[in-house]
Amino acid sequence: MSKRLTLGIFGFGVVGQGLYDIIKTKDLNLSIKKFVIKDPTKERSLPASLFTTDASVILDDPEINTVVELINDADAAYDITVRALRSGKNVVSANKKMIATHLEELVKIQQEHGTSLLYEGAVCGSIPIIRNLEEYYDNELLHSVSGIFNGSSNYILSKIFNEKQSYEVALKKAQDLGFAETDPTLDVGGYDPKYKLAIVASHAYGLYINPDEILNLGIDKLGNSDIQFANEKNYKIKLIPLAKEVDSKHVVLYVLPKFIRKDNILSNVENEYNGVLVKAAFADEQFFYGKGAGGHPTGSAVLSDITALRYDYRYEYKKHLESQQVEYSTDYQLEVYFRYADEKTLEQIQFDSISERYYAENFKYVIAKINLQEIIKKRDLIHQDGNFLAEII
Amino acid sequence: MSKRLTLGIFGFGVVGQGLYDIIKTKDLNLSIKKFVIKDPTKERSLPASLFTTDASVILDDPEINTVVELINDADAAYDITVRALRSGKNVVSANKKMIATHLEELVKIQQEHGTSLLYEGAVCGSIPIIRNLEEYYDNELLHSVSGIFNGSSNYILSKIFNEKQSYEVALKKAQDLGFAETDPTLDVGGYDPKYKLAIVASHAYGLYINPDEILNLGIDKLGNSDIQFANEKNYKIKLIPLAKEVDSKHVVLYVLPKFIRKDNILSNVENEYNGVLVKAAFADEQFFYGKGAGGHPTGSAVLSDITALRYDYRYEYKKHLESQQVEYSTDYQLEVYFRYADEKTLEQIQFDSISERYYAENFKYVIAKINLQEIIKKRDLIHQDGNFLAEII
Repeated sequence: MSKRLTLGIFGFGVVGQGLYDIIKTKDLNLSIKKFVIKDPTKERSLPASLFTTDASVILDDPEINTVVELINDADAAYDITVRALRSGKNVVSANKKMIATHLEELVKIQQEHGTSLLYEGAVCGSIPIIRNLEEYYDNELLHSVSGIFNGSSNYILSKIFNEKQSYEVALKKAQDLGFAETDPTLDVGGYDPKYKLAIVASHAYGLYINPDEILNLGIDKLGNSDIQFANEKNYKIKLIPLAKEVDSKHVVLYVLPKFIRKDNILSNVENEYNGVLVKAAFADEQFFYGKGAGGHPTGSAVLSDITALRYDYRYEYKKHLESQQVEYSTDYQLEVYFRYADEKTLEQIQFDSISERYYAENFKYVIAKINLQEIIKKRDLIHQDGNFLAEII
Repeated sequence: MSKRLTLGIFGFGVVGQGLYDIIKTKDLNLSIKKFVIKDPTKERSLPASLFTTDASVILDDPEINTVVELINDADAAYDITVRALRSGKNVVSANKKMIATHLEELVKIQQEHGTSLLYEGAVCGSIPIIRNLEEYYDNELLHSVSGIFNGSSNYILSKIFNEKQSYEVALKKAQDLGFAETDPTLDVGGYDPKYKLAIVASHAYGLYINPDEILNLGIDKLGNSDIQFANEKNYKIKLIPLAKEVDSKHVVLYVLPKFIRKDNILSNVENEYNGVLVKAAFADEQFFYGKGAGGHPTGSAVLSDITALRYDYRYEYKKHLESQQVEYSTDYQLEVYFRYADEKTLEQIQFDSISERYYAENFKYVIAKINLQEIIKKRDLIHQDGNFLAEII
């Protein structure tokens, strides 16, 4: 019934190792033939014969029918994935940036070559959100999909709000523990959750949106005044990507820090955990929670994709093929808190209305309505040092 | 690509109506040909020609290829399901008692007749737990599956612990709101979550267990002393079904009220909501949350099953077919709180050890270790008026 898989795996980092750990515990009708690695001098826990630095050893081996791509470099991952899909191999990838950036083309290649690309591990680690959007909510009217998609920034925010640490101290701790990179921009700047959002939105609404077109502001400008403001008002700040149907024809997508109330279910997602909140017309509020990163959680998602390929599973992209398509829009009014350093900044931004304004020597802010398009247009101005913007929900 | 479905639906109650509401909003390549109802005199919101009281009108109609069974009577549901599956029709059912009681036979009939029976709506309403166990965790080593599976009893417990109501007042309110039946035993006695547990355990561990063999104690004996005890110790009480791998060969299943700490994720599942907590070797802790009952949430799960049948989806029951099977066991030691009225009761129960003992005129309890087998053996004695048992975790 199930097809025997022979795997070629690119990458033997934390996820590759986690995957290997899982596979060896189970009798799964699959075998790993080769790992392609970058650094041949690094000591490995497995026999040297399993490793090579030559991608062709996997890509040109007709016996290998399944390629697992677990490398960081999005460009290299793209080349590998395209070559593999075109040569009749199925691919499992965990590279969110690569998938988000090239999804439309990758879907076309799959269709042309009858191959399958699965990427559950690319979005929120162990949480099976893509599979559920694809299989289970395929006929649901989805009002919105949002959540905590980035463990690093969430870890930092948990330290800030639960342990009263400053942003700088919390970031340093996250870096020491390996939860954040030396250059943390991808995480704290909201790029990583944006890539995931683009993938999620694609499966939720049948859209192909280049991530460059989606607004992301992160928590990298978060200051002590903002934290104090949040605490006084009994808010927590979370970095939240959102895909939302604003009317029956339009969907908005953006990543912003948000002030959320403590009864918001996302308020309970702490530290390196992820949570996905799906609001649907009939299923109502659905929430998925689990570890968003790490070798074993992500490895388990990758394995689930691999074993699904034994049954020739593929995403159907049903919502992309539907006649009634929704369109991506940036015309959406939101309420924000905006702390700014320089009074001139405020004059250059067009707010729809300002409901509160606070002014002190070292702390100035407004609470205001603003259109998403205006935030996109003035992004660089808003994102300067001394400023911080967050949505209030 | 998708098969056109012609539906015959048994039942037009809250779920049947909810389902109809959902179907009419979408172009799904399916049509409803007939509803079979019990009471022909009741006024209906749809044309009379859609209704009949004669089951054969659906079951003998060769044009109807899909039967949706949404009636309360488990015996009648069983007859309908078996007849339909045997005559080549696929079936979607939301009847947890029927599925739990007859699952092994129903799987056999599906295999013999090449038909498919789906029942996501039978377990935790809108939460896609069966589909995820079947498809996504099919190769995961599952340590345990537990959760809040019964909205009625959870609503009552929320009123008790968040609004300081007594059990009696909270039950009355739940009944007034339609969250609990006039005879609430099925819910507050833990039978309903037990049926769901049997189904979940089947998909999680490949077991067929007659629900009669599974221990269930409910919250129906919960008294003010127990509530006060929980509050003093900073516990909440929740009614929790559990399937747990106690070693590599044995799984225990039982439903008990439990004292849980407020940092337990299930502690945040309030009112009529359900939550399912899956602990897996590699995916780690996974949590699914959503509405457990109601016309639209359950209707959405039923619809998801119906639309999956357009692609001839069927449960594979892979874990039942695996060579390394686990067995059902009742040999498991747990720690319990046991309030009792009569000192003689205590003498008749064999505890492994008693760590605390409290004695006052109107309130006596022990904290003790006890084997699950002993609770099963002394169930009637333990479940007498004046007594209340809950696990401490």
